[in-house]
Amino acid sequence: MLKQKNIFIIAIVISIFLIYGCNGKNDSQNNQYEGKIILDEQGSFAFGGIVTEAAGEFNGYELFPSSDGQTYHSDHGYAFYQIPINARKYPIVFLHGGGQSARSFETTPDGREGFQNIFLKKGFSVYLVDQPRRGRAGRGSVSATIDAAPNEQYLFNWFRLGFYPDVNEGVQFKMDEETLNQYYRQATPNTGDFDEEVISDAMSELFNKIGEGILLAHSQGGGPAFFTAIKNDKVKSLVLYEPGGCTLPFPAGEMPSSNDITMPAFLPIQEISVEDFNKLAQIPIVLYFGDFIPNEHSENPFAEEWRLRIGLMKIWEDTLRKHGGDVEIVMLPDKGIYGNTHFPFSDLNNVEVADLLYKYLEEKKLN
Amino acid sequence: MLKQKNIFIIAIVISIFLIYGCNGKNDSQNNQYEGKIILDEQGSFAFGGIVTEAAGEFNGYELFPSSDGQTYHSDHGYAFYQIPINARKYPIVFLHGGGQSARSFETTPDGREGFQNIFLKKGFSVYLVDQPRRGRAGRGSVSATIDAAPNEQYLFNWFRLGFYPDVNEGVQFKMDEETLNQYYRQATPNTGDFDEEVISDAMSELFNKIGEGILLAHSQGGGPAFFTAIKNDKVKSLVLYEPGGCTLPFPAGEMPSSNDITMPAFLPIQEISVEDFNKLAQIPIVLYFGDFIPNEHSENPFAEEWRLRIGLMKIWEDTLRKHGGDVEIVMLPDKGIYGNTHFPFSDLNNVEVADLLYKYLEEKKLN
Repeated sequence: MLKQKNIFIIAIVISIFLIYGCNGKNDSQNNQYEGKIILDEQGSFAFGGIVTEAAGEFNGYELFPSSDGQTYHSDHGYAFYQIPINARKYPIVFLHGGGQSARSFETTPDGREGFQNIFLKKGFSVYLVDQPRRGRAGRGSVSATIDAAPNEQYLFNWFRLGFYPDVNEGVQFKMDEETLNQYYRQATPNTGDFDEEVISDAMSELFNKIGEGILLAHSQGGGPAFFTAIKNDKVKSLVLYEPGGCTLPFPAGEMPSSNDITMPAFLPIQEISVEDFNKLAQIPIVLYFGDFIPNEHSENPFAEEWRLRIGLMKIWEDTLRKHGGDVEIVMLPDKGIYGNTHFPFSDLNNVEVADLLYKYLEEKKLN
Repeated sequence: MLKQKNIFIIAIVISIFLIYGCNGKNDSQNNQYEGKIILDEQGSFAFGGIVTEAAGEFNGYELFPSSDGQTYHSDHGYAFYQIPINARKYPIVFLHGGGQSARSFETTPDGREGFQNIFLKKGFSVYLVDQPRRGRAGRGSVSATIDAAPNEQYLFNWFRLGFYPDVNEGVQFKMDEETLNQYYRQATPNTGDFDEEVISDAMSELFNKIGEGILLAHSQGGGPAFFTAIKNDKVKSLVLYEPGGCTLPFPAGEMPSSNDITMPAFLPIQEISVEDFNKLAQIPIVLYFGDFIPNEHSENPFAEEWRLRIGLMKIWEDTLRKHGGDVEIVMLPDKGIYGNTHFPFSDLNNVEVADLLYKYLEEKKLN
């Protein structure tokens, strides 16, 4: 009996150790993977575009052949994608703004995680696009000239870091040399004219390839984003950070007039059919704008341009709502989020900005 | 006693279940992560480059300001990096060839995993570079004109898919429409003159930033790779796939003469100091070439160019060996690996090509 009692005690002790060891092992395994990015798959591909062919016959016996009889694939976009384990239903497709590439959504200028990593870690598949005639999708169907003209103080003002050399008070941007260095170097030129038709044609092909998803666009990407959603109902939502420098589509018969409002310089309106406009009313659309956009006329022509854009956008929002649209212009300061520049997704408070978007996607059942 | 015996049995049974459950849980966790890419970290940054400034004073009150008083960051490279868990000591830095970007090393044209994923899964950190004036590092210090001239049959021949329209027999390339479509669309133009000095300056800054590593370069990247290794001893090895279209450096006094051999059209030799040349003798260097390179004169001017390049390279190899260099030109067919084009790392047999490189790195204790 004593022996049995001993065995009993030994069995209990072994059990405890095994349970402890087992949990410990799982814990250390879980810890090992905590905060890591775990991918089912990643890769890249070209999407959309055209093929042209020069007349004549190709001569392979010349080391410097003419274009005769040769083909040219161009006007495609490029996407790098990552699928995390247990991915959510809808991927997020990221489309950059003017003079930028998918680089916008990677590491922030100050070296923190951008929306690529933030949303991957929230379980979303991500598709990071270089639009046709930009970055790695540089092969366009038209020739181009690239002018290396200094323009960074202009960008400083446009992007609302401040009014050069003054810095906006409370701006969510680390104003040190290396951050500005990274910020300016993420710009990359057009390798062919910016063409919303070309871009939205390619983007629609992207959605044909990957299926339903959320299209998140920045700045000049807003125009192509509207036209992509009109062309392809696989776009389940538009998330637009500071659209501008692109076309704003209005339905036939409801175009705002420059008699009624002062038009901004770089947000041209375009008349489209009511049928097409109504397609935008079928999906949730949210527009986010940052801080330092004045309510009254400003002598800073860039701040003034943003003010006029918001004025026009609000008319557009009203029009889309009249057509039954689920659309919302969010001024981040109205949500208690202050200090944002033209790049809210890479500003110092981008985790907060991402959380706001996540809540929106949750609310719209898109997560 | 019966009660104790029962408790004893119950304890044993529980133990067995717990042990079984514990192992099962670990197994399923392990299975869950098998074949996945697990990253400690990923991100991107610009490296190197210069800053220029236009004379005069910036006028922020104009919506279309001149360049006066404005700055311009340019001639940097761009790197996207991924650090897997338990990463090996040396990262691999991938530098693309002419008319290409880091895209070369991502998904293959036929949709399989490229060297990025293959070497990540082998535990190497990877840095995928767009060189200065290319892709996402498009902002160069010089203006440029991009000509959308059809040239794909020329590339078909250059890259040894065949002699257009004939296909090389046994070529490790899936010759279907979508593969060719992806292949041609991975090309992206220069946004400024190709400049080995500019590129190697930036690449050296990259190694200053990330520390010691292996530099793997393709084709035209070979020249900048040589000069990067000369400039920075943090380059611990050069792995060159089909270098060409770039400069081949020889030590002063040992330049080969066109009296001795027929020079290729696009592999210019350059005299450098013996001291600099000897730096190349300090690290293991391997050059890989694919198939379809003739041993005798060919009427196909592209095949002939490759033949002449190999001839010159072998003289270079001898010269470097005389200086104590650990250098090897590997013709893949000599290793029983057949059918490779100018892109062995994305050809259909790229896993085999990667294994050969892995064995090399192992042999040189670089893994």
